[in-house]
Amino acid sequence: MQYGKFITFEGIDGAGKSTHLAWLERFLQEKGLEVLVTREPGGTVLGEALRALLLDQRRTMHAETEALLMFAARREHLDKVILPALERGAWVISDRFTDASFAYQGGGRGMALEKLEQLEHWVQEGFSPDLTLYFDVPVEVSRERLQSARAADRFERELDDFFERVRQAYLQRARQFPQRIRVIDGSSSLEKVKAAVTEIVEKFWSTQFDRDGKE
Amino acid sequence: MQYGKFITFEGIDGAGKSTHLAWLERFLQEKGLEVLVTREPGGTVLGEALRALLLDQRRTMHAETEALLMFAARREHLDKVILPALERGAWVISDRFTDASFAYQGGGRGMALEKLEQLEHWVQEGFSPDLTLYFDVPVEVSRERLQSARAADRFERELDDFFERVRQAYLQRARQFPQRIRVIDGSSSLEKVKAAVTEIVEKFWSTQFDRDGKE
Repeated sequence: MQYGKFITFEGIDGAGKSTHLAWLERFLQEKGLEVLVTREPGGTVLGEALRALLLDQRRTMHAETEALLMFAARREHLDKVILPALERGAWVISDRFTDASFAYQGGGRGMALEKLEQLEHWVQEGFSPDLTLYFDVPVEVSRERLQSARAADRFERELDDFFERVRQAYLQRARQFPQRIRVIDGSSSLEKVKAAVTEIVEKFWSTQFDRDGKE
Repeated sequence: MQYGKFITFEGIDGAGKSTHLAWLERFLQEKGLEVLVTREPGGTVLGEALRALLLDQRRTMHAETEALLMFAARREHLDKVILPALERGAWVISDRFTDASFAYQGGGRGMALEKLEQLEHWVQEGFSPDLTLYFDVPVEVSRERLQSARAADRFERELDDFFERVRQAYLQRARQFPQRIRVIDGSSSLEKVKAAVTEIVEKFWSTQFDRDGKE
């Protein structure tokens, strides 16, 4: 049995992840694959309980507490959802993963990247996504898109410069892992973004199957 | 302002911690100190929410998830409760702390002690209790004491050999830190245990105040 692939979507809210995530799910299903879509924080019963704690507007936890909770949820997510699916050959798409910890707790909340790298290694021991699509938009664009959609949660209510730091941390992470993380300009038209996503995904698809010797 | 001292009580349930913890609280209060009593997991709003998650009988989480949650609660406990109290000169008594992670997740659940040491260092950066009272009882004694007291929670329902591993890990930790961790035979009579606790605490008290040059 061949292992599945693990694809993650990253970006601040309002960057357009959801639309294209649904599109990628269909694309892969049409190739005849089992596709599992999940998200972080969340993805398990425990993870969703932790997500509620994390997003709860009333709590103002220490940045390191937040990071430990994120990685606790991730450990469970890997153990209960992601790894078993990959092992049975399914492709897994996650709406956010570890890059988001570097962006939000690192860039946004100012935690030392070294401490996040220690947790990443502690939990993942070298495991990482096969492909990451990072949807990059200026903070103003994301704010405009979100404004009428729904009430802001704890993260969203933080200031624009918080999100600018998150964005810069995402871009830095993309420069650090240029093979894995593909930056997509999420501020252009839906059609253009879709074309960019399609090109990346088709290329990834063909590379995988060339490399694995299938067709 | 002089820093307070941090004293922890350790041992499996039924070892007799609670009785003597209440006694130590009164002893220190009678010395005119501000005393703060807290517990792990718990001790903060977030910590109590995590405690409920951890004790929930329905969940069967990965040992590493459990360890990350314990240390997340501990990070918050330190930030919101323990360190501010010590900084204002209060003495803090905690019903369990990091030694319990080594005993339960390490000994009980078989996690590598090295991984726990990494988390301990990540969260505490060298901070540790000034004094730890470990109440040691054979597993049979603790089980007999607890049997009629109340319904067993998730940890308590695990098998006797789980608790035997927890006990051995506590004893190993005590051998590793003989200056800080004092082993008390919790299976002897209440009076004998109280005498042992009194002797240790009086000695600690006089040492502290000799060293600090007060009286």
